Amino acid sequence: MPDFEVTPYDVEGNVNYSELAKKFGITELDDVMRERIFRAAGDSHFLIRRGIYFAHREMGWLLDRYEKGEKFYVYTGIAPSGSMHIAHLLPFTIAKWLQDRFDAEVYIQIPDEEKFLVKKNKTLEEIHDLAIDDARNIAALGFNPKKTKFYFDIGNAGFMYKQAVRVAKHITFSTIKDAFGFTNETNIGAIFYTSMQAVGTFIKSVEDGKNVPCLIPMGVDQDVHFRIARDVVDKLGYYKPATIENIFMPGLKGQQKMSASDPDNTIYLNDDEETVERKANRALTGQQATAELQKKHGGNPDRCAVCQYYRFFFEPDDKKLERIFEAERKGTMLAGEHKKHFADTVNRFLKEHGKKKEAIKDIEKFFLST
Amino acid sequence: MPDFEVTPYDVEGNVNYSELAKKFGITELDDVMRERIFRAAGDSHFLIRRGIYFAHREMGWLLDRYEKGEKFYVYTGIAPSGSMHIAHLLPFTIAKWLQDRFDAEVYIQIPDEEKFLVKKNKTLEEIHDLAIDDARNIAALGFNPKKTKFYFDIGNAGFMYKQAVRVAKHITFSTIKDAFGFTNETNIGAIFYTSMQAVGTFIKSVEDGKNVPCLIPMGVDQDVHFRIARDVVDKLGYYKPATIENIFMPGLKGQQKMSASDPDNTIYLNDDEETVERKANRALTGQQATAELQKKHGGNPDRCAVCQYYRFFFEPDDKKLERIFEAERKGTMLAGEHKKHFADTVNRFLKEHGKKKEAIKDIEKFFLST
Repeated sequence: MPDFEVTPYDVEGNVNYSELAKKFGITELDDVMRERIFRAAGDSHFLIRRGIYFAHREMGWLLDRYEKGEKFYVYTGIAPSGSMHIAHLLPFTIAKWLQDRFDAEVYIQIPDEEKFLVKKNKTLEEIHDLAIDDARNIAALGFNPKKTKFYFDIGNAGFMYKQAVRVAKHITFSTIKDAFGFTNETNIGAIFYTSMQAVGTFIKSVEDGKNVPCLIPMGVDQDVHFRIARDVVDKLGYYKPATIENIFMPGLKGQQKMSASDPDNTIYLNDDEETVERKANRALTGQQATAELQKKHGGNPDRCAVCQYYRFFFEPDDKKLERIFEAERKGTMLAGEHKKHFADTVNRFLKEHGKKKEAIKDIEKFFLST
Repeated sequence: MPDFEVTPYDVEGNVNYSELAKKFGITELDDVMRERIFRAAGDSHFLIRRGIYFAHREMGWLLDRYEKGEKFYVYTGIAPSGSMHIAHLLPFTIAKWLQDRFDAEVYIQIPDEEKFLVKKNKTLEEIHDLAIDDARNIAALGFNPKKTKFYFDIGNAGFMYKQAVRVAKHITFSTIKDAFGFTNETNIGAIFYTSMQAVGTFIKSVEDGKNVPCLIPMGVDQDVHFRIARDVVDKLGYYKPATIENIFMPGLKGQQKMSASDPDNTIYLNDDEETVERKANRALTGQQATAELQKKHGGNPDRCAVCQYYRFFFEPDDKKLERIFEAERKGTMLAGEHKKHFADTVNRFLKEHGKKKEAIKDIEKFFLST
């Protein structure tokens, strides 16, 4: 028995990522593969350098093809359920980089039914509004509208349902029951849903009428969708998708995964300045119990949520990040200052992000038209 | 244990329709209800007079509302799997009569994915072509294009998927597993499908933005879809649909249900004259083993497939039907003549039907536009 469990709908226990990689059949990124990615990109990325993207499937195959001139597209997505938080941005941050560095088209699924089916408290109309807001938040990261297509399961069902039906024919309830932690009491919409998520793995091949390699950046909790989809798309005659998968962004209070159940545990993109300051003040640091002890013994950045937020998102520069870690480690920056600096950094980002979001006047230009 | 089983996907054992009605919770039509229907219609219909439509749900409720000025719409459908056969026409024959006599709008679902999901041998493209052909066959029965809307699950998924998702949320795998004879090895598309079929029960209420009563004429084998749907649509705030349900049309060789597995057991709408003659010649009659015995003892029209085909479809006039039955009973019409007359009748119908089908130049005018 494993002492942890990871599905798209639940994370239990303390996740050991090496064991998880073995269990899921994904390969941990090593220096050789990281270097190969960076060489092909002509650039490196902090989320990969720092092991936040920690594992992959078939990146070697994808880069072989890329180096022979066969371009890949990127597929990722987000299921709207409330305001987006910082952890949601990880796959989009990498997707944007892949678009810039590999000239990759990016397909972004915004399933506007998933949370309706697996949760209780939102109407389809509310989720639709959240979906449009999510699209604006994502577009604000700087995606090229000419090379980016957002699509919705309901909003694009005229295209999606047919493709999902092709997938669904090859997936039995047995296959998904354990994979997703479903029971006989799960509703039949949630049971069908993985077919909709699988469509992204071959959506561009359908559009182009020929096989196009697909790379999926995602949180490792989504892996099961694509373990199942890989078998199916192979039967449909498409390439199996490559994936690159990130570990969970910790909660501000130190939990292993950000969670929407405690709003103070995460930074939302619509948090105002005071909210951010409050959350920063309540955040867990890796410091000693008193300023005196901290000055004497120093703290532990690995156990400091604030340090980890710089590492995961807010400080892309490795040297600057190391200075923050060093100050924490040596006790030269006390908790109050640390948190103040963090709150300022987050608020600067959110303000800037809000401006970019505001500047997007025509979000529909990003939408898949079929 | 019942000694028969009826689901949309399988009929086993000898069906006792009274027991089936009890099992399904439907009410057998009696003279009082038949008279009430005919009075409201200002007309009677042979399929109801003859007990071929044998049971119903809430016809009383529907007619109460109708008599108070609240019009109902009719929903029925057919899942394309091959050429349509005569038994397929029963619900459409009644639907057309309901349109004419109650000024009812008719919504006809042509699920262009169901047989793809539950059978193995057809592509979605083949089913699409069959779906269009089915639409033409149905339209040829004389439906009023201004009051008739054909819709497809894939072809109208832009509308349908959202509504099906609303339904699906309220149906668990447990609920449908036994109801449809499904197992854990059933594919997740087939599992989801009943949600798409349920949409017809409230489709006009969605379109009109207010509750509109719905009447569903159908083969009794489809009843389970609506036993399940009735609970759900009630939760969604719509009226539960009324139904009127027909017994199975027997096979030409005497089986209790026409089946596509033996083509000689059914009359297809695209059968040519020789095929019809061959099928008529091979059909089961209720006659004695020899002409001599038949002249002496007479036959049994209840066991004569040819007589039953007149009863179910080809002879709407009760007096003429009685003459055919009488001739069979008294031995005044021998098998050869009986079959010849039947083949001529069928061929006349098919020729006429083919002409009407040919005359439909713009089938799209019948299609739901959303």
